[in-house]
Amino acid sequence: MALKHLIAVIHGPNINILGSREIGIYGTGTMSDINSRLETVAQKNGFKIETFQSNSEGGIIDYIQQCAGRVDGIVINPGAYTHTSIAIRDAISGIAIPAVEVHLSNIYKREEFRKHSFIAPVCIGQISGFDGFSYEAGLLALLEHLGK
Amino acid sequence: MALKHLIAVIHGPNINILGSREIGIYGTGTMSDINSRLETVAQKNGFKIETFQSNSEGGIIDYIQQCAGRVDGIVINPGAYTHTSIAIRDAISGIAIPAVEVHLSNIYKREEFRKHSFIAPVCIGQISGFDGFSYEAGLLALLEHLGK
Amino acid sequence: MALKHLIAVIHGPNINILGSREIGIYGTGTMSDINSRLETVAQKNGFKIETFQSNSEGGIIDYIQQCAGRVDGIVINPGAYTHTSIAIRDAISGIAIPAVEVHLSNIYKREEFRKHSFIAPVCIGQISGFDGFSYEAGLLALLEHLGK
Amino acid sequence: MALKHLIAVIHGPNINILGSREIGIYGTGTMSDINSRLETVAQKNGFKIETFQSNSEGGIIDYIQQCAGRVDGIVINPGAYTHTSIAIRDAISGIAIPAVEVHLSNIYKREEFRKHSFIAPVCIGQISGFDGFSYEAGLLALLEHLGK
Amino acid sequence: MALKHLIAVIHGPNINILGSREIGIYGTGTMSDINSRLETVAQKNGFKIETFQSNSEGGIIDYIQQCAGRVDGIVINPGAYTHTSIAIRDAISGIAIPAVEVHLSNIYKREEFRKHSFIAPVCIGQISGFDGFSYEAGLLALLEHLGK
Amino acid sequence: MALKHLIAVIHGPNINILGSREIGIYGTGTMSDINSRLETVAQKNGFKIETFQSNSEGGIIDYIQQCAGRVDGIVINPGAYTHTSIAIRDAISGIAIPAVEVHLSNIYKREEFRKHSFIAPVCIGQISGFDGFSYEAGLLALLEHLGK
Amino acid sequence: MALKHLIAVIHGPNINILGSREIGIYGTGTMSDINSRLETVAQKNGFKIETFQSNSEGGIIDYIQQCAGRVDGIVINPGAYTHTSIAIRDAISGIAIPAVEVHLSNIYKREEFRKHSFIAPVCIGQISGFDGFSYEAGLLALLEHLGK
Amino acid sequence: MALKHLIAVIHGPNINILGSREIGIYGTGTMSDINSRLETVAQKNGFKIETFQSNSEGGIIDYIQQCAGRVDGIVINPGAYTHTSIAIRDAISGIAIPAVEVHLSNIYKREEFRKHSFIAPVCIGQISGFDGFSYEAGLLALLEHLGK
Amino acid sequence: MALKHLIAVIHGPNINILGSREIGIYGTGTMSDINSRLETVAQKNGFKIETFQSNSEGGIIDYIQQCAGRVDGIVINPGAYTHTSIAIRDAISGIAIPAVEVHLSNIYKREEFRKHSFIAPVCIGQISGFDGFSYEAGLLALLEHLGK
Amino acid sequence: MALKHLIAVIHGPNINILGSREIGIYGTGTMSDINSRLETVAQKNGFKIETFQSNSEGGIIDYIQQCAGRVDGIVINPGAYTHTSIAIRDAISGIAIPAVEVHLSNIYKREEFRKHSFIAPVCIGQISGFDGFSYEAGLLALLEHLGK
Amino acid sequence: MALKHLIAVIHGPNINILGSREIGIYGTGTMSDINSRLETVAQKNGFKIETFQSNSEGGIIDYIQQCAGRVDGIVINPGAYTHTSIAIRDAISGIAIPAVEVHLSNIYKREEFRKHSFIAPVCIGQISGFDGFSYEAGLLALLEHLGK
Amino acid sequence: MALKHLIAVIHGPNINILGSREIGIYGTGTMSDINSRLETVAQKNGFKIETFQSNSEGGIIDYIQQCAGRVDGIVINPGAYTHTSIAIRDAISGIAIPAVEVHLSNIYKREEFRKHSFIAPVCIGQISGFDGFSYEAGLLALLEHLGK
Repeated sequence: MALKHLIAVIHGPNINILGSREIGIYGTGTMSDINSRLETVAQKNGFKIETFQSNSEGGIIDYIQQCAGRVDGIVINPGAYTHTSIAIRDAISGIAIPAVEVHLSNIYKREEFRKHSFIAPVCIGQISGFDGFSYEAGLLALLEHLGK
Repeated sequence: MALKHLIAVIHGPNINILGSREIGIYGTGTMSDINSRLETVAQKNGFKIETFQSNSEGGIIDYIQQCAGRVDGIVINPGAYTHTSIAIRDAISGIAIPAVEVHLSNIYKREEFRKHSFIAPVCIGQISGFDGFSYEAGLLALLEHLGK
Repeated sequence: MALKHLIAVIHGPNINILGSREIGIYGTGTMSDINSRLETVAQKNGFKIETFQSNSEGGIIDYIQQCAGRVDGIVINPGAYTHTSIAIRDAISGIAIPAVEVHLSNIYKREEFRKHSFIAPVCIGQISGFDGFSYEAGLLALLEHLGK
Repeated sequence: MALKHLIAVIHGPNINILGSREIGIYGTGTMSDINSRLETVAQKNGFKIETFQSNSEGGIIDYIQQCAGRVDGIVINPGAYTHTSIAIRDAISGIAIPAVEVHLSNIYKREEFRKHSFIAPVCIGQISGFDGFSYEAGLLALLEHLGK
Repeated sequence: MALKHLIAVIHGPNINILGSREIGIYGTGTMSDINSRLETVAQKNGFKIETFQSNSEGGIIDYIQQCAGRVDGIVINPGAYTHTSIAIRDAISGIAIPAVEVHLSNIYKREEFRKHSFIAPVCIGQISGFDGFSYEAGLLALLEHLGK
Repeated sequence: MALKHLIAVIHGPNINILGSREIGIYGTGTMSDINSRLETVAQKNGFKIETFQSNSEGGIIDYIQQCAGRVDGIVINPGAYTHTSIAIRDAISGIAIPAVEVHLSNIYKREEFRKHSFIAPVCIGQISGFDGFSYEAGLLALLEHLGK
Repeated sequence: MALKHLIAVIHGPNINILGSREIGIYGTGTMSDINSRLETVAQKNGFKIETFQSNSEGGIIDYIQQCAGRVDGIVINPGAYTHTSIAIRDAISGIAIPAVEVHLSNIYKREEFRKHSFIAPVCIGQISGFDGFSYEAGLLALLEHLGK
Repeated sequence: MALKHLIAVIHGPNINILGSREIGIYGTGTMSDINSRLETVAQKNGFKIETFQSNSEGGIIDYIQQCAGRVDGIVINPGAYTHTSIAIRDAISGIAIPAVEVHLSNIYKREEFRKHSFIAPVCIGQISGFDGFSYEAGLLALLEHLGK
Repeated sequence: MALKHLIAVIHGPNINILGSREIGIYGTGTMSDINSRLETVAQKNGFKIETFQSNSEGGIIDYIQQCAGRVDGIVINPGAYTHTSIAIRDAISGIAIPAVEVHLSNIYKREEFRKHSFIAPVCIGQISGFDGFSYEAGLLALLEHLGK
Repeated sequence: MALKHLIAVIHGPNINILGSREIGIYGTGTMSDINSRLETVAQKNGFKIETFQSNSEGGIIDYIQQCAGRVDGIVINPGAYTHTSIAIRDAISGIAIPAVEVHLSNIYKREEFRKHSFIAPVCIGQISGFDGFSYEAGLLALLEHLGK
Repeated sequence: MALKHLIAVIHGPNINILGSREIGIYGTGTMSDINSRLETVAQKNGFKIETFQSNSEGGIIDYIQQCAGRVDGIVINPGAYTHTSIAIRDAISGIAIPAVEVHLSNIYKREEFRKHSFIAPVCIGQISGFDGFSYEAGLLALLEHLGK
Repeated sequence: MALKHLIAVIHGPNINILGSREIGIYGTGTMSDINSRLETVAQKNGFKIETFQSNSEGGIIDYIQQCAGRVDGIVINPGAYTHTSIAIRDAISGIAIPAVEVHLSNIYKREEFRKHSFIAPVCIGQISGFDGFSYEAGLLALLEHLGK
């Protein structure tokens, strides 16, 4: 399939308040900082990004479905829905577009319930713990994958 | 209570992309195909159906609440929310209208987490595994129940 | 494979005392009532049914094995063996004839140990909770499946 | 309901080889010794007993069903089926005759899997650990119960 | 931080149908009754309340985020989301405003899955079981806390 | 060892309010009724009984220790301590006097946590579910055991 | 039943050293401070309180039994016995007087084993996390309940 | 004890349809092929074999009991009863004749529930995964054991 | 804080019958033997010991509370309460005096339920398995700790 | 692939002290006795064996890797690493040479943690419980497999 | 601390046979390919890498200890030891040098036991599923971290 | 058996970096400090010690095997292998020399996975939490044991 040179970047619940939220865990960078950096990385590789944030599980599913046939891949930080949403998992496997799961914090250092991801098994892979750079590494990994 | 001769048919998350989604599991029929067939079956029995789809847990709850006093029964495929939504369960038991849970795929042949339903205990019964015919059987079972 | 136009209907343990047994859960209909209704439904579709009841796990396995090459499909209510018999499961997958699991009561409303079925994963699907109509819906679903 | 003055005594699997079987656990008394003693106790109280033994789960269910309307109560040692048979449980609750569960050995001193009984919750009570006297105490408890 | 003398009161899913919903569990009082009483209690203490209801997890998160910098505290009845929503938990700890979790029914008397709260560990405390008065006690506890 | 012809009867916590306590579960008989009946049974067999009740785990242990060398056996209803007291278990195995565990209600029909006994593995056996007669059967079983 | 206008307030183990004990968790207020405040609240409502503290499970049970017929309700902080005492639970349900469970600390923020209460299911409700005010809210909730 | 030079070979449920059953797992060899090969191996070692197959748990127990005093050892493939039958386990330990458990397929490569054997702990050992040769190896191991 | 040169030695339930109790596990030494030896060890190090034994959980808590401000450290063998008492744990952490947990037997060689200690996490450390010498090693370890 | 007529025999940790180690469980035969017997069996079948023992998980992995392309099959007794080594499992599946897992003792008669094998699912099969003959049977099964 | 401009790259067990091992899971790239690519990436950033592979848990620990004071960070693919080695975890936290855990395959798509990492909680983060690029992304993330 | 007056002291993984490793948990003492102190204690009692450290599970097993017939007892700190090594457990029970398990930190205050020891059940006892003095107490306990 011909590439569209577009990557969707999905921010899950509470990522929109990044920078003011639990700074000890998430740092002071904002969602907008992350988007800017991703844009630069994408451009260097001849791609564009489309960014999306929602606090709603259904909203994220709606958006994922709208990605079908339009984007080459998805970088998704499902936030808390990582651990509770089978519906987002089904949306990703339903549209059959390569996705990468990313997390700002190292979810394996935190509460027990954050160690399980419903999403990871339907993604290419998972990146966790590098603050905003998790997204960047995720985008690079996705581009690498698309280049294969 | 006098019958309204109306049945609500609720399609949960990702049912709207049926036909293009994981065809090995869900087949090539679409949600619209299912609705058409249900309409025919309902008409033969002197009933109408009202169909609804949402990817949003809250949206489904809103709709279920709006069914109160308006419909005689509900055929619901809660999709992935089957396994995670106590709120939909509470909506169904809250409005006290008979409901039937249906699934396209045989959820007992799939991942462990798909074997548990929060919804089934507040329904009359559950039908799972017969593709689009699960809905049809569900509608027939509901009509049978209403006839009692 | 050419159809034999014969469906086996298997009633598991304690179904033979239906009508007098725990009426609050199982209702007052008898096994014979169910068989009659199934016969009518089958005839309308150009099929015959052969009915069998046993309280013995081994007896049910013997019968399932004798279905091989003789019937087009099986409607089975494994009763309590649903939750404990791997041997019946192996018999069904051993003969490779399509089967549908049915239950009179909604097993998801009852004791925790009734929520697990060893049989469902080797059937086309499962129908639970509609009293005698569960069998009828199971037969219809089986015929639908054979028609595909 | 008028009393029939008949009590059914059911011996489960492997009770028939009592006296030669794992003597360290079960002692040297035989099933026939137990039956004799029970007969004496019953007679003193104006009752008869009918004894039954089977190694087959289905055989035990058949017999329990045949007790309906014929006996006033059941003393049952379900042996190993105590821990695995939901079907025997269903038979007992299906015929709605008071039953007492008895065990020769103290099942709470043995393997973990012997500590759970599927049968006890549908009986009046359970007696475990007094060799043949468990049956005798069970019969006395049943007569006491019938006298209420 | 100077007090704003405003408390947010959040009603989770299905609280809007209170009064008609499972009256045996939840009583006949309505959400509006609760709000009125809270208003009176708040006024006596020199506070106002702002009330919000949503059946949507995302909607509740959106609202919680909008509380930041505007309200002194939150009284929240997360309803069924108590047991399933890590995202609402993250929203509350994200905005770092004191919150109190309240429940109409005694959740410890009900199904096993209602005994676990994802929300309580990020609140000051939890109040459960006093019908509408749970909210009132929650508001009093919050005011007490703010007074410290 | 020569018999002392004395049996200790130990009533655990809340048995002293029997007759007024949860009558649906425990009946209207009192602890004193039970003691009287046991006295009669003991006398017929040439034994005396010494009765003891305490709501205190430590008090029961003190008493069990004082039984050493003084009584031939113990009939104990450990009440709620059945499920939580390893210390009472240790006291019984520490003094090495035969004991029988009895329960008024059928503990296998009740909450999950009542199904496990820390005490039963160090007793001869357990009797559960026959109201006051559980004690009587326990005394008979103990005398039978002493006669061996 | 006519009200006695007396409420029992029960403090469980280690509450008597409040003020010097783990101040980070429990604060510097003393048990006597709590009692004084409760007295004031009770008086305003035309009630008296009777306070009791014990480190002994059996002592608490003895006291609860003595409440029967004498008090209108109980406010109880079972302390560590919350998580281990089935006997206190049985005492409360045995005397059938309305009770409210209170905790100084938010038990849902602490060790896993503090999240389970054997007592809550037999109380009207539970209040946890508001330091001494938990008792006050508990008393108010109890009075509200008695007023119904 | 003098040897009888007879070994019992027991085939559990569904072994009788070997050769036509789930060929991917069990291969195309038949039960009769296995028996022939075992006969040859036995003869070389001066032994005879007696073969038995049943789909019934009770039937297998009856046969095991009849082995007592007649055979030197047992080679048993308990099939699905491996994982569910405590009664067969009790029969084997009841007659105290050395037994070897064998399986055609490697049960450790299959469903989780096939990994647990109730039978293995009362056998000399277990052999799993070598198709028909599992029986042959089992017979050799048994003869080796008898030679010791 | 200036040292008081006094160490409290606490013996939990059933330690008072040491020497006659389950000699295979606990040996023939008595509690008094242990106390004598500890006295000698303490004296050599310029300390005194105060010994206490109780079979009552509450009694032990009372005593621990009375240690506050009076002793430099505690050597405690909580016996069976090790595994069941959160209240003793809370007493120890409540008075904030260094404690050492000791056991006569190796609790890791015994029943599964003896492997978990509620007490150890609030002690400096735990010593298990050296009969009476466990206490001696505990005292030495405590003195070493106080010397730091 | 042409056969090399060489079989690797791998002895895991502590097999080298066989004959002096826990004789009640493992018997008095030595590793060298086993090797000799295997050599004889191999020779009769036109094969050689190469034997290896190591107490080191890494050492065993190194050796397994060196088997690639050199041997026709592996007989391995992974000893305690059976239950803990995923790395040995990965080595075996990594080199894709048929392997048979053998155990001297019947691991299903021992501690719970010995019942799970990480190795068995990547082997042809498993043989357990026949002392040194387990190896011999394993070798025969492997040769049988290679002959297919 | 001044940077040494050296990064240690650690390959765990079975990575040395990459390219020939389970190609469906791990691809055809070799360990040497990965090392080369990492070298290039490092150089571009002014760093060198030192590579190490061992199949031995102890060998990996020895090497990690030798990294102390010599390298700026560690990229580690612990292979199967990810899931079983607490000792490697302790080595990493013992030397207190930033580490990144990487995996070739997506461990969340595989066996249940591969989903738990003992190592991740002591690393900055974890990257899983991008074949050789996982290492590259890990190196980039580490350099990013060092740059902070 | 005549004493050799030699005790083996085994230090598990990461003990060699003691003094620089996680000082908050393990303190600043070194392994060499511990060895010196143990030497002094041993000499006072007429014993010598032989010390050994390895990061390798296999290395520790090799050493334990070499202790057979040469030393009177073993003091072992298995470090992280405490929780994962069945092979070290088997080595200790294989050579049948008395061993004492020691830990620097209180393993019951740390992560859940550090609370289980595979080694303790095959040792005389376990000492945990007293820094370097744990070894000293362990040596004393061992000498005490040898003196018996």
